[in-house]
Amino acid sequence: MNIVDIINKKKNREELTTEEINYVIEEYMKDNIQDYQISSLLMAIVLNGMTDRETFDLTTSMLNSGDKLDLSDIDNVVDKHSTGGIGDKTTLIVGPLVASCGAKVAKMSGPGLGYTGGTIDKLESIPNFKSALKEEEFIKNIKEVGFSDIRPTKNMVPADKKIYALRDVTGTVESIPLIASSIMSKKIASGSKNLVIDVKVGKGALIKKIEDARTLAKLMIEIGKKNNMKVVCLLTNMDIPLGSNIGNSLEVEEAIDILKDHKPGSLTDLCIELSSHMVSLALKLTYDDAKRKVLENFYSGKAYKKFLEFVKKQGGEIDKLPESKYLCEVKSTKEGYLTNIDALKLGIASMKLGGGRISKDDKIDYSVGIEINKNINDYIKVNDILLTVHTNKEIKDIDFDAFTISKKTKDNYKLIYEIIN
Amino acid sequence: MNIVDIINKKKNREELTTEEINYVIEEYMKDNIQDYQISSLLMAIVLNGMTDRETFDLTTSMLNSGDKLDLSDIDNVVDKHSTGGIGDKTTLIVGPLVASCGAKVAKMSGPGLGYTGGTIDKLESIPNFKSALKEEEFIKNIKEVGFSDIRPTKNMVPADKKIYALRDVTGTVESIPLIASSIMSKKIASGSKNLVIDVKVGKGALIKKIEDARTLAKLMIEIGKKNNMKVVCLLTNMDIPLGSNIGNSLEVEEAIDILKDHKPGSLTDLCIELSSHMVSLALKLTYDDAKRKVLENFYSGKAYKKFLEFVKKQGGEIDKLPESKYLCEVKSTKEGYLTNIDALKLGIASMKLGGGRISKDDKIDYSVGIEINKNINDYIKVNDILLTVHTNKEIKDIDFDAFTISKKTKDNYKLIYEIIN
Repeated sequence: MNIVDIINKKKNREELTTEEINYVIEEYMKDNIQDYQISSLLMAIVLNGMTDRETFDLTTSMLNSGDKLDLSDIDNVVDKHSTGGIGDKTTLIVGPLVASCGAKVAKMSGPGLGYTGGTIDKLESIPNFKSALKEEEFIKNIKEVGFSDIRPTKNMVPADKKIYALRDVTGTVESIPLIASSIMSKKIASGSKNLVIDVKVGKGALIKKIEDARTLAKLMIEIGKKNNMKVVCLLTNMDIPLGSNIGNSLEVEEAIDILKDHKPGSLTDLCIELSSHMVSLALKLTYDDAKRKVLENFYSGKAYKKFLEFVKKQGGEIDKLPESKYLCEVKSTKEGYLTNIDALKLGIASMKLGGGRISKDDKIDYSVGIEINKNINDYIKVNDILLTVHTNKEIKDIDFDAFTISKKTKDNYKLIYEIIN
Repeated sequence: MNIVDIINKKKNREELTTEEINYVIEEYMKDNIQDYQISSLLMAIVLNGMTDRETFDLTTSMLNSGDKLDLSDIDNVVDKHSTGGIGDKTTLIVGPLVASCGAKVAKMSGPGLGYTGGTIDKLESIPNFKSALKEEEFIKNIKEVGFSDIRPTKNMVPADKKIYALRDVTGTVESIPLIASSIMSKKIASGSKNLVIDVKVGKGALIKKIEDARTLAKLMIEIGKKNNMKVVCLLTNMDIPLGSNIGNSLEVEEAIDILKDHKPGSLTDLCIELSSHMVSLALKLTYDDAKRKVLENFYSGKAYKKFLEFVKKQGGEIDKLPESKYLCEVKSTKEGYLTNIDALKLGIASMKLGGGRISKDDKIDYSVGIEINKNINDYIKVNDILLTVHTNKEIKDIDFDAFTISKKTKDNYKLIYEIIN
């Protein structure tokens, strides 16, 4: 077996065997296959696709490249994943909410690379929050609190780490089989047998078309089945930012606004929906029973209490959230209805303020970010404040012009397109 | 401009601009773009193609990565190129033959990587033959003898060298625009304004289909036009080895057999044909006039005299050609008509004997190789000698079973499919 023959096969649209896929992953991890050979193969996969069988094999092969976590002695465990989007702080809300219902949420997350921080970065904006726990501590926290979110405890799926870093710089990110095997190998390694995935679709997301999101969802569900894992996918709208805050500590604050003060909006609706599916899976309840429980615990304050318990358990001091030195307001120069907010543009702006990483060693400024002061279909007058920028430095060369103001209101905004299981 | 955006454009089947192509080549040569990014882009080009405009730009950009040779003070200069095949020693015959007609053949060749040596390796099998001449000596030899064949004098087309080495190990060799720009950038840099290209088609060649060969030929002719170079392409059969000898000094011997003793066969026919087009281009004669001249000089012995003059001028001692220690005969176990000889299999066998390079630093054993003792459609009896192996070591694990023997003769063997200009 040799890598050039394997690349040629995929180039010629032939199906790779299980042995060939294992050979690629194993030899790449031993540095016997070079980055420039893998990137050529990845581009052939992006353009010529993979069969479901190949995708299952790639997932298994990547999974076998590292360690797996065993959570079999905890009952009712459920995990969640989001394909990522600007301002996505759902885990901060959903984790405590689902745990307050009696399910166990076991979540491991890597730091974010991209416009905004990952969930772990958001949590680490809470002073003294510990995200690097030992496996025993993680399991203990899940058992006692019902929710823990940490960095991976073990060398989990190193093949995905190596391949993902390469995909990022070789234009080979957008591929349904590659996305599916990357997500699922990590989630299977994390040990949960139940998983709810929020597949983001739209301008601010990796997946732009609903058909692609559907294909990805079905593929991940199939991979789950083959690995004894129940998967439910929600296909959700990511044309506009989720919630009103972008930036690490600002997103923690918004999570508190929702959990404590029940701030309404699309983010709250999405969190209730995701939580209901997670509780339904973990506790084997009907969706309606699960949703009733979720809503009760949300409005009774139990979910907020659980949030405080979770943060404290991991050492975080929630009353010491960092704040930026300066606040700047961006005002409207137009009058009319707010019909669109460009999520991607605000994500880039937040990154430029220091709230995200460009390369993996960049330090994040936790206190900076953007607060959006208006909602879709609000009527805006000239000089109305559209957003508040939280910054520690002078603002230059940052584009905040992300608002579309029109004469008519926008048609119904659909938050959840489909649920697939 | 950045490389990931450029890769994504090609991945999405968009046309790259001149500036983008220049950026890729320039930054790659400065090591600001990595091999793994270029290989991903190359695979996108292999699968999604390039427009003619992109191919012209790529050729120009590669050409500008290094030095060019100026041959403008020599009249009637012509160059030749072959896309390569097992046992291809046409240059050794065509060079002196065309020079004997009064045209000037200026040829530079790199050493061969692959099953059999390149033309330079074949020439270097002649003891004391000097292939590393200075530019002045090269030009002087062309003026005085009419033919010189040397290694490149300057740092010519380094971008092609770097990209070709990468294509070889990333499954990105088979692409018409990449092949065309690679060949033409080197030929334009070599300074001749007339070029005859032998495009090999068939099992033993890079190009398997006649349609692809035609597309490649037309593209190279167009690139030539844009660079003030007249190009004629011959599409020729490479299903069976060219001539009867494979191996470096053995191929020189076969060239002598043809030039001195006018040994007939398809190799001789091809050399007459290539030479006629070269003479026609260089001396601005009609094809018929050129062919008459070529045949006269071939049969009068003038071409052979020119061969001896050429070898002597570059220091070679033709009477001291190395010979292998051992000769082994491979005999037939079947009776019938010889209908096929597997060129690729014999090329691999010759390489394994030591006659070719696997990696670029391998040393070649000039004296080894294979002599095919029968021709297509010969009637073969059991125990007839099919081939003679010239070797310096014990033969193990080498497959010489390259002969197809059938009850009926093979249909007409077509040597030259088409001539395109």
